[in-house]
Parts: sequence; structure tokens; C-alpha cells
Amino acid sequence: MKQNQIQDTLRLRRVAIDTYKENVAYLNGDCEIYRAEGFQALSKIKVTINSNSILAVLNVVHDDTIVSPGELGLSEQAFEQLGEEEAVLVRVDHAEPPHSIDAVRRKIAGERLSAEDYIAITRDIAKHRYSKTEMAAFLVAAGENGLDRDEILYYTLAMADSGKRLNWGEPVVVDKHCIGGIPGNRTTMLLVPIVAAHGMLIPKTSSRAITSPAGTADTMEVLAEVNLSPDRLHTVVRKERGCLAWGGTAMLAPVDDILITVERPLGMDAMGQMVASILSKKLAAGVTHLIIDIPVGPSSKMRHMRQALKLRKLFEFVCDRINIQLEVVITDGRQPVGRGVGPLLEVRDVMQVLRNDPDAPQDLRQKSIRLAGRVLEFDPDVRGGHGYSIARDILDSGRALTKMQAIIDAQGARENSIPPAPLMHDVICKQDGVVTGIDNLQINRIARMAGAPMDKAAGIDLLKKLGDPVTVGEPLYTIHAEFRADYNFALNLARKDTGYTIGSTEELPATYVEF
Amino acid sequence: MKQNQIQDTLRLRRVAIDTYKENVAYLNGDCEIYRAEGFQALSKIKVTINSNSILAVLNVVHDDTIVSPGELGLSEQAFEQLGEEEAVLVRVDHAEPPHSIDAVRRKIAGERLSAEDYIAITRDIAKHRYSKTEMAAFLVAAGENGLDRDEILYYTLAMADSGKRLNWGEPVVVDKHCIGGIPGNRTTMLLVPIVAAHGMLIPKTSSRAITSPAGTADTMEVLAEVNLSPDRLHTVVRKERGCLAWGGTAMLAPVDDILITVERPLGMDAMGQMVASILSKKLAAGVTHLIIDIPVGPSSKMRHMRQALKLRKLFEFVCDRINIQLEVVITDGRQPVGRGVGPLLEVRDVMQVLRNDPDAPQDLRQKSIRLAGRVLEFDPDVRGGHGYSIARDILDSGRALTKMQAIIDAQGARENSIPPAPLMHDVICKQDGVVTGIDNLQINRIARMAGAPMDKAAGIDLLKKLGDPVTVGEPLYTIHAEFRADYNFALNLARKDTGYTIGSTEELPATYVEF
Repeated sequence: MKQNQIQDTLRLRRVAIDTYKENVAYLNGDCEIYRAEGFQALSKIKVTINSNSILAVLNVVHDDTIVSPGELGLSEQAFEQLGEEEAVLVRVDHAEPPHSIDAVRRKIAGERLSAEDYIAITRDIAKHRYSKTEMAAFLVAAGENGLDRDEILYYTLAMADSGKRLNWGEPVVVDKHCIGGIPGNRTTMLLVPIVAAHGMLIPKTSSRAITSPAGTADTMEVLAEVNLSPDRLHTVVRKERGCLAWGGTAMLAPVDDILITVERPLGMDAMGQMVASILSKKLAAGVTHLIIDIPVGPSSKMRHMRQALKLRKLFEFVCDRINIQLEVVITDGRQPVGRGVGPLLEVRDVMQVLRNDPDAPQDLRQKSIRLAGRVLEFDPDVRGGHGYSIARDILDSGRALTKMQAIIDAQGARENSIPPAPLMHDVICKQDGVVTGIDNLQINRIARMAGAPMDKAAGIDLLKKLGDPVTVGEPLYTIHAEFRADYNFALNLARKDTGYTIGSTEELPATYVEF
Repeated sequence: MKQNQIQDTLRLRRVAIDTYKENVAYLNGDCEIYRAEGFQALSKIKVTINSNSILAVLNVVHDDTIVSPGELGLSEQAFEQLGEEEAVLVRVDHAEPPHSIDAVRRKIAGERLSAEDYIAITRDIAKHRYSKTEMAAFLVAAGENGLDRDEILYYTLAMADSGKRLNWGEPVVVDKHCIGGIPGNRTTMLLVPIVAAHGMLIPKTSSRAITSPAGTADTMEVLAEVNLSPDRLHTVVRKERGCLAWGGTAMLAPVDDILITVERPLGMDAMGQMVASILSKKLAAGVTHLIIDIPVGPSSKMRHMRQALKLRKLFEFVCDRINIQLEVVITDGRQPVGRGVGPLLEVRDVMQVLRNDPDAPQDLRQKSIRLAGRVLEFDPDVRGGHGYSIARDILDSGRALTKMQAIIDAQGARENSIPPAPLMHDVICKQDGVVTGIDNLQINRIARMAGAPMDKAAGIDLLKKLGDPVTVGEPLYTIHAEFRADYNFALNLARKDTGYTIGSTEELPATYVEF
């Protein structure tokens, strides 16, 4: 029997590695107390101090400067989650997979899960007890037709309960949400000031982009502070009837934020997951009346009207049962909305519309007025069919602009304006004809490679839209970048595929719109 | 535009972290060339030097002593795979998911995949292009009824082609394989010397335990060297007609070894995956005649005869199409075989049988003779039904022991014998009655916690088997451990659940045996 084993503890050490939403523990391969190999194959360990413990995936370290044999290292997130000081003594145990993994196994085997199963799964995920591998297993098992509509309801409720719940104490709290995937689609930044100017309560919290070139929060950040504390958020909303804040600090349905780190790299976007993700956030945010925007087009998330209808019915089924008044609109998702793609360029479009600039992108203006009009009709005092003209009047009269400035000031206006990107490149048309297709996915990818949304000024400025005539040598769009490496990534990608299809007028795709 | 961007390369650095079969790259958060956040959400990067490149998951480092802003770190496996020196200059690119992920998505959506799809998937996995998340997605999608029998065939062929193929140049190359899950089931170490003593070619390569307390390779290692180079393996087999080596160095169907690191923590063991894993290894090892042992019992992998029959038919379907002559035997999987569980204790059992010790565990002896008899009947010169008595004669005459010693010497006998474990604890019976159940899973877990197979002497020594009368205070089994922490883990687990059920004779489970 070896020595040094009387006290089975290791000194805690923070290892400054961001392992992206997965708890990782680092154990030295020469640790004399715990046998690294024995733990590693079983994938996870439990790190305990007093009654406080976390689960973490184990990596074995062979470098004493990172973690010495008497230490246990934790990655940044795991260290924060444990919430202890460095150098405290911790114990290590074998971790059984979380109990709810049994439910995941039943889902893999094709079973229908109960409300209790979804509560157990979301609770374990919220506490970071799942490895990424386990999350992937759950997402795949639950993906593509794996959830029936009752399960989607259970899952929505369980996710909503995994974080905080906001209560606004008013009978009508409105919101609007797009299922995503369309570049430049910044209608929220126009809809919120219009609706708030009308006096309805619209406490809008948005996400940041994960793999797209901009989320509403990224774009609003060009103008104002978006990381508002819950108190600050309430103050802004009480004063202005609306806000445009980042939802992350509010801790609404945090499970979704964790799952998304696995879902996105896998390119998964199953309907059941989408409905539960969106509606759990709305429920947690205290929303009572909701417009959902489902764009349909060849490179949208919904490619066919029949898919969009199926999705609409799922939203309706769940909303009826969680007491959210819902309207679903099917919109034109054949191409990006507006011209700019990326935070700064999108802000330019939004401000042009708010200022009634004659050069403002008309598609962004029209879509925003229509959506705002539908929201306004949630107001019992607005006559059915009158929402559109009220919204247009609020915009045309400058009241929306005034409200936007008031919201910006209330959230905290950004002190220095962001300069345009130093690196620009025109992508040139190689064929005469008419623009018959713009690939939303490719435009998003190129803008992302150019540095959006991390570099606010990076992105794409579209010069041609569907139906526009083009000739050889004309620029289709301009790539904007701040960093040389990003600039090259974007140019290379555009060189492989510009994302544009040129043809003749009769090849233009049909529009599916219900709105 | 910032400086330092003319030369878009970083200095390569080896980071001594074992990330367990996943390539991980470490980038400093302050790197001025590549923007860590932009890469991280997309999950993987491509690291390139000249025409050589690998894919890796990205972790962001905020500690210059691990990786400085001008460096790119690679985890041990990733560094080895790239195969370059430290301090060479590498480029970093965004990595698209490997092409075959499209096929995985189609599988998730419920489609049937083609032979080409399986070739593409296994090739990408073999080259470490899949993250663990992606592997989990594939395994879950392919799990539980997700593969039809043609797909299992395609998958088997693709996995066999992912590594080396052995060719023995003889018409009859025999092997025996158990689907696993039964503690102490070390029949291979008896069957190989019996069959080789008869003169048949049995070049047996085995795995090490991943999450069980011992694999044949771990146990044989108590007696001899098992890490044989391909040349050495051939020399041993040519001389002795058989070997008991670790299959890892032979690089047979390596995809399976990679997938298992994800499969085991998820507790997945789908039939299709099992059949393809086992048969791809056999095909790669040049096996022509094969016995598959399927134990059936309440805590076996196959719990019911109908499951075992379904599995048998899958093995038959694939073997008929890859030209392997197959016999499937259904065996008693109600309890562990022999007494010892863990490398050293299992070796003791095996040597007792080889030496015809009257105390030798009779179940291990009987099962080994029966299986060996079935293998011997693959010999055209052995009359049907005579295999058993020939095998028994080889064992009783001491020829099997002589052959085992010859194989040990050929592989390289271990110089120092392994001492018994210093820490021992008897687990006591708390009830009078008869042993009516022994939970294979719990016995495996306890033995594993005790330190097996890493600590050769650790494990469990069973003192009572099914049907044995027991009284209060009698020991059921002894836990053996080398390390104090492991000893405590095992005792705690046994305290929660000994794995034994005590009852009356009529409660003994029925045996399903076809053999």
C-alpha cells in the first residue's frame, strides 16, 4: 500500500481554459490518490467540497505547470459553477451518469417521455450535469419527429421552469419572434419602438448570434448598452414601455442556451426543439401575446409551405395550453431583408427606415410595419384591420424614431460611434441577367467569416436583390472586414460560391406569403 | 487595421493534456490573428502546415503559460496526428463539418444509408474529423433499430476497411468471441491453448477493458507481454499456431476503438453497432471460422432468448455475406463465470483449470471445453460431435498447459509476478437462504471501482454462486484493492448494493442455453 493516501483530497486550481459550456476537470496523470485512467473511460467525475459538488468530464494532464499531481484543475466554467476559492481541498468521486440519462435512453429506444422526464432532463442540463456527448444524444433522439406535440408541451414547460420567470403585472405583454435564418431581418428594432410608442408593453429580450452574423442584441449594441441587470431592465420598460435588451443576463430558460452549443455545430434545427426553445423563453419572459414570423423560401429554415404549416400548428397547440395568445405569419424568406448583414450595416438600414430616408430599404420598412400592425391589433382598442395604418403613421410621423432614441438613452447610449470596417471588397457579377436566387445560408456564412457579429462593422452590404437586372462586372455586394485573416476567410468563401444565382425573370422563385 | 497580420501563422505548441480520443486545439483569447470567439461557436478548426492538416475542437485559453497569443496549442492526440515538430508555423482555418455529416443528418431523419455513406463516415471518423458530439449524433441515430441488416453489412465492410487487414494464407483461421458483459468469463485463455495444441490456427487478438474490470488482453498481461508488433505477432503465431495478444497495435478496424469512447459513457450497446464492431474486427484479422458466444440472463446484455435469437440472425446474415463460417452458441449468462473478477484473480482461475487443480472452477472449465470443442469441429478431420472429448483430452493431458506456457514464452513471459492486493474486504451475507441472483453489472462496477483492470491485483473474488446455501454473517465475496481511494469507492458501492439476491431455491432464474 502506497503512502500519501490518508487524506484523499486535492488542492483546487482554476485552469484558465474556456471549454465552451462543458465542465472539464484536469487531473495529473501521476496523481497518487486518484487513478486518472480509471476515471477517464467512464467519462465524468464528481468534484466535492463539503456538500457542494459538480460533475465534470475528465482530461488527464502530463504537465505539472498546468496541474500538479496534488492538484485538481477545473476549467473556467466548472470553477465558477463550483464557486469555491483556489487551493481549497476537494474530493473526487466516480460520477454515475445523471439519473435522467435513463429517460434519454428510453427516448433513443423510441419511447414517449412524461412531463416528469422532461423536468428531470432539463434540471440536470441546467446544472451542467450533462456532457456534450450526452446532450447530443438527447438532441438527436428528440430530433426529427422524435417528439409528439404533448412532449413538446412538457418540454416547453420544463425549460421555462429551468430559470427565472418575469412577471409584468399587466394583462397584455406583447412580443414578436422570427424563427431565424434570414440575413438582415432586423424588423424587431423597428417594431419595438412603433409598438412602445403606441403605448403597449413590449419588454423585448433577444439573443446574441451563435452561428449567424448578427442577433438583435448584437445589432442594438451598436447603439446602446444591452447587458441590463433585471432591475435596470424593469426600469427601462416601466419608463419607455419597451426595451431592446440581451436576454442572457435575465437567465430565462437557460437550458436552451446550453443545448444550443451542441445543436448548432451539429446543424440541427428540429421543429420540436425549435418550438420548445422559443416558447419556453416567451413563457419565462412573461409574454401574453405573441406574433411568430415563419419565413418560407428555398434557403430558409422552412423550405416548403407544408413544413411551415406543420410548424404553425405545433406553435398553436402549445400556445393554447400555456395561455399565450398567438398569431403566426408566414413571410417571404426567399432572400435577405434590407441591405446590410452584420451589426453596423443593419443599424444603418434600421435608422434609414426610422428617419424616413427615401433610400431606406423598402422591404425592411414594409415587413416591419406589417408585423407591428399585427402586434397593435392585440390592443383591444384597435379595430381589426387598422393595425397596419396605425403602425405606418407612428413611423411616418417620427414618433417611432423619438421612441427609439428614448429607449437608447434609457438603456445607455453608446459613447463612441463605431467606424466603418477598414477592409472592403466588391464581389462582382460574372454573367448578364436577372438575380434569381440569393442563398441565405451562404450570405450568412460569408458575413460570419468576415467577422460579424464579433466585429461590429464587419459583414456584407447587398447591392442587388431578387429580380434586379445585372451585367458582367457589376458588384453584387461588398464584404466588410476589420481583420486580415477574417477578410481572407470571407473572400475565399465568396470565391467558391457568391451565394447569387443569375438567370432570367421567369426563373424567379414563387413567393409563399400569408400576411 | 491592426498590425501583426501580415504573416497569418502561429507557432505550434504541444499541450500535455490527454483529451481522450478527441482532437482539441488551444488558442489564446488575445490572439491578434485569429478571433477565438468566431471559431469557438462553430466548434471546429482546421490546423494546416503545408499540405498536412487536422481538424480539432477549439478551447480558448486565458493563460499565456499554457498557450501564448502567438501560439496554437494541440492536445497530445492532435499533436501526434499532425505529426509535426513544436514551433513550426501553422495556419488556422474555419472547418466545415466533414462531408459525411450530411449522411449522419439523413440517418437522423430516418433515412437508409448506402454503402458509400458508410465508407465516408468511417473514413472521416478514422481520420479524427468527428468531434465527440458528432460521433454521439451518429451512434444515437444508428442505435436501437436505426440500421437495417443491409446497412449493418455495409457498415461492417466499411469499418473493416478503415484499418489494416491481416492475411494468414491458410484456409482455416479460427476465432471465438463473446459479446461481453459477464464478469470473469475468461474462456478465451483456455480455448486458445486447447485449439492451438490441436494444431488449428488461432491468432487471437483481444481488446482491453474500457469500462469492464478486465479484457482478455488485460488478464493475459499478468502472464506475458501482449503489446506485440505486427511482425512479432506473426512470428508467435507461426511458431505456436496461436497467440493471446492485444489487438490495438494491429490497427484492425480502428473506427470501433474511437467510437467506443463515446458509446460506453452513453451506455449504448445497440445490436447493429455490436454486430458491425465485432465482425469488422474479425474480417480485418483474417478470420475464416468463428464461434460467437451470446450469454443470456437477467443482467446480461441479452436478457431474453428472443433478443438473443434476433442478434444471432443478424450475425448470420452478415457472416454469410463476408464469407465467415459462423456458429452461434447461446450460453448461461445468469451469473459470473469462475470465481475471480479482475486480471490477477482471473489468471488464478485459468491456471487452476489448466493445471487440472481439483479446486478449479468447474463452470469455467466446462464452458471452455464446450466452446473449444465447437471450434475444433471446424477442422474437417474432426467428426461432428467429437470436438468436446478432444478438447477435454487436450486439457486433461496437460497439453493445453504446455501450449499456454509456450505461448507465454513466445510473447515474452512477465519477469516479476504480481503480488496479491494489499487491501481486502469481505462482503457479508445479511440473510439466510440460497443465492438466487448475482447482478453481473453491479459485480463489474464494484470490481472496476476497486481498481481493475489498471491495478492488476484489484477486483472481486466470488465465494458464493447461484444456488449456494448461505447464512447470515457468511462472506459472499472479497473485494481486493491496491489503492485506498479505490478501496473506499468499491466498499461504498457494495454497501449500497452487494449485487447478490438471497431467496429460496424455487426463485432461481431459469437457464436459457443452446449449446
